[in-house]
Amino acid sequence: MTRPYNFSPGPATLPEAVLQQAADEMLDWHGSGMSVMEMSHRGRDYGPIIEQTEADLRELLAIPAHYKVLFLQGGAQAQNAVIPLNLAALKPQRQMDYVVTGSWSQKSAQEAAKYGDAQVVADAASTHAGAESGYTHIPAPTTWRLRPEASYLHLCSNETVHGVEFHELPDLSALGSQAPLLIDFSSHVLSRPLDWSRVALAYGGAQKNIGPAGLTLVVLREDLLGHALPICPSVFDYRLQAANQSMLNTPPTYAIYLAGLTLQWIKAQREPVGQGQAELHGLAAVEARNIAKARLLYDCIDGSQLYENRVDPACRSRMNVPFFLRDESRNAAFLEGAAARGLLQLKGHKMVGGMRASLYNAMPLAGVQALVEWMREFERQS
Amino acid sequence: MTRPYNFSPGPATLPEAVLQQAADEMLDWHGSGMSVMEMSHRGRDYGPIIEQTEADLRELLAIPAHYKVLFLQGGAQAQNAVIPLNLAALKPQRQMDYVVTGSWSQKSAQEAAKYGDAQVVADAASTHAGAESGYTHIPAPTTWRLRPEASYLHLCSNETVHGVEFHELPDLSALGSQAPLLIDFSSHVLSRPLDWSRVALAYGGAQKNIGPAGLTLVVLREDLLGHALPICPSVFDYRLQAANQSMLNTPPTYAIYLAGLTLQWIKAQREPVGQGQAELHGLAAVEARNIAKARLLYDCIDGSQLYENRVDPACRSRMNVPFFLRDESRNAAFLEGAAARGLLQLKGHKMVGGMRASLYNAMPLAGVQALVEWMREFERQS
Repeated sequence: MTRPYNFSPGPATLPEAVLQQAADEMLDWHGSGMSVMEMSHRGRDYGPIIEQTEADLRELLAIPAHYKVLFLQGGAQAQNAVIPLNLAALKPQRQMDYVVTGSWSQKSAQEAAKYGDAQVVADAASTHAGAESGYTHIPAPTTWRLRPEASYLHLCSNETVHGVEFHELPDLSALGSQAPLLIDFSSHVLSRPLDWSRVALAYGGAQKNIGPAGLTLVVLREDLLGHALPICPSVFDYRLQAANQSMLNTPPTYAIYLAGLTLQWIKAQREPVGQGQAELHGLAAVEARNIAKARLLYDCIDGSQLYENRVDPACRSRMNVPFFLRDESRNAAFLEGAAARGLLQLKGHKMVGGMRASLYNAMPLAGVQALVEWMREFERQS
Repeated sequence: MTRPYNFSPGPATLPEAVLQQAADEMLDWHGSGMSVMEMSHRGRDYGPIIEQTEADLRELLAIPAHYKVLFLQGGAQAQNAVIPLNLAALKPQRQMDYVVTGSWSQKSAQEAAKYGDAQVVADAASTHAGAESGYTHIPAPTTWRLRPEASYLHLCSNETVHGVEFHELPDLSALGSQAPLLIDFSSHVLSRPLDWSRVALAYGGAQKNIGPAGLTLVVLREDLLGHALPICPSVFDYRLQAANQSMLNTPPTYAIYLAGLTLQWIKAQREPVGQGQAELHGLAAVEARNIAKARLLYDCIDGSQLYENRVDPACRSRMNVPFFLRDESRNAAFLEGAAARGLLQLKGHKMVGGMRASLYNAMPLAGVQALVEWMREFERQS
C-alpha cells in the first residue's frame, strides 16, 4: 500500500519504519511477551527503554551534561502555566518577559499573567502594521524592551500557525540581559541543531517531530530547578520530576517508547552531500533534507502567480509553510484535487486561512515534490 | 505464541484482541492511509473516534446526561492538585475533607493541603492500631468527622497498593452531609458498575483497566464546573475543557483510541451464569468474571498455611490482591518459579512488601488459575 502524504500540523505524520516496528512489537516486545504499554514503568524491561530514549535525545541534540531531560504530560500548553509556576520566582519581582511572534507565544504570555508580572516586550503584530496577517516577521532583538530584573525571557522558536521561525536564537547576554532564555520548540525540535549556550530551557509537545500526542519534553539547565511556587502541582515541579527521573507519577510510557523509535530513525538517516563528499548522518542529514524540502516549496510559491506566502523570507519556517491562493474562491477545488492525489490535511489554520503544509522530519522529499507538482498543475488549470 | 500472564499493578495487561487490532491498524486506520496517532485531533477522521469512545464509556458506566466526560493528561496524581484547584472554592471556607484508606488517598490529602484547609476526616491507619500494615480496613462512615461546610469529600475507592476497596460507596446525604463525593477510581474503574447518585466526580488514570498510561479520565457533574481558582492552569480548568470537548489543548489522541478499543472489547464480553439462565453481557459479564477471579485467589490464600492477606474481608479489593509468605525468606524462590511459569510482575509494592497480584479486566480466569496452581505447588514444596 502507498501511504498518502500527510501535511498535518500535529499530530502529524511519523516515519513509516517507526510505525511498522511499533506494529511488529505490539504484542511482544523483544521476547518479553508484553506490549511496551503493558509494562510497569518501574520494571526491568521498561527501564532501558526510557534510558535509551534520553541518551539518544542527548546525543542528537548535543544536550550538555548540566541540563536535565524531563518526560512530562500536558503538552506545550500546560507548560504555559508550568513555566511561571516553576520560574516566575527566579527573581523576587516575578517579572516575566515574552516575545510574541505568533499565536502560540501570545497564548504563553496570556497564561503567564496569572502568576505574576508577565509583559510582552516585543510584539510582531504591533511593530509591523503593514502586515496583513499580523504575524509575518520577527522584531529585531535590539528593539526588545528587556527588563533588567526579569526572571526569564520566553519566545516560541517556531510558530506552527503563522509559519515564523527563529533561524538564529538571540544572544541575550550580548543584549545586556542576564535573564535565562526559555523557548517553545514544539514544532521544529529535532529538525535542526540547537545552540544550548543561548538557551536555558526548551520545551515542546511530542506530536510534531517526536511521536504521538501526550508526551511533553522539557530540557532545562540544572540551576533552574528548585524555584517552584508552593502552589505548583507536584507532578509539574521540575525539581521533583528531575529527582525522580520523570517518574514521580506514571509517565506516558508508550509515547516515550515511540519517541525512542523516532530518535533511532533520525540517528539512522543518511543524506548525500555531493559527489566525492562524505554523506551527512543523523540530525545533519535530517536538517539538510528539511532545507531542501522547504526551498522546493517556497521556490514554487514565490515563482507562481497564484500562490503567496506573506512571511518575511528571513524568518520563514522550514517546518510549517502557510500559503494562500490569490483567488480564494478556488481553495476548495485545490484541497479536493490534493486529497485525490493523496496530499492530505493541507487546509490552513482557521486563524490564518488559506493553506498550510507542515514538512516535519517524517515528510519525505517525494511528498513535497508531489505537492509542488500538484500546485503547478493546478495553477496551469487556471 | 502464548503470552505470559502479567499481574502488573499498572501500566498493566491489556486484552490481546485490543493489542492485535491496534497492531493491524497501526499503518492504516480504516483505509485512511494514516495511523490514528498521525491524525489531526480536529480532523474528520479523528472526531468519530473520540466521540465513540465517550459514547461507549457513557453506556458501559451508565453515566447520567448531566455529567461531563473529560479526557485529560497527568494521571491521577495531577488530579490531586487539579481537584483542589477546581473545587476548593466551591464553598468560601475552602475546607476539603479526605478519607485515608491507603497510600493513594494519603497522597491526595497531602497535595490538597497546598490549596486550602485540607483535613483527614478518617484515617484507617490510626483507627485500627492493631493492623500491621497500617491500611487494612475502612473506618465506618458513621465515624467520619465530616465538616458541614466542606467543599467536598474525597476518597480512593480502590487502593492499588494496599488492596482495600469500597464495595459500597457512602451515601453522604444519609450521613447529614451536603458535600459532593469525589472518588479516585483509577484501579477499579470499569471493573463493576458505579452508583452515580452517590458520586459527583470520579477520576482515574487509564493505565489499569482502560488503556495505556498518559490518559486521565474525569467524569463530573455539571454543577462542579466554573469554580476554578484563578491560579488553575487553563488546560486543567474543568469548565474550559468541558466547553472544548477536551480539546483546549491537543488530547492524548492515540491513548484515547486505545481506550476506545478496550471499551469495545468490554462491550463484547459474554459470561454464562448457569444452565438455563441468560448469559451476562458487557460490564456485568466482566464484573462476574472479576468476582470469580478474586474469590479463587482469596480462597487459595485463606485456605493455605503459607500465604496470608491481612485486609478485612469486607473491603478486600477484587483488583489488587497483596499477599505475604509467612516465611519471607522464600519470597525470591516464589517469584523465580512464578516467572518460569509465565506469571509476571508479582512482587509487592516496596511500601507493603510481599506479593501483589493485580487482576484487572484483561486478566483471564485462566491466568488466576495458573497462579493458584503455582501457589499450591510451591506450598507443597515447603
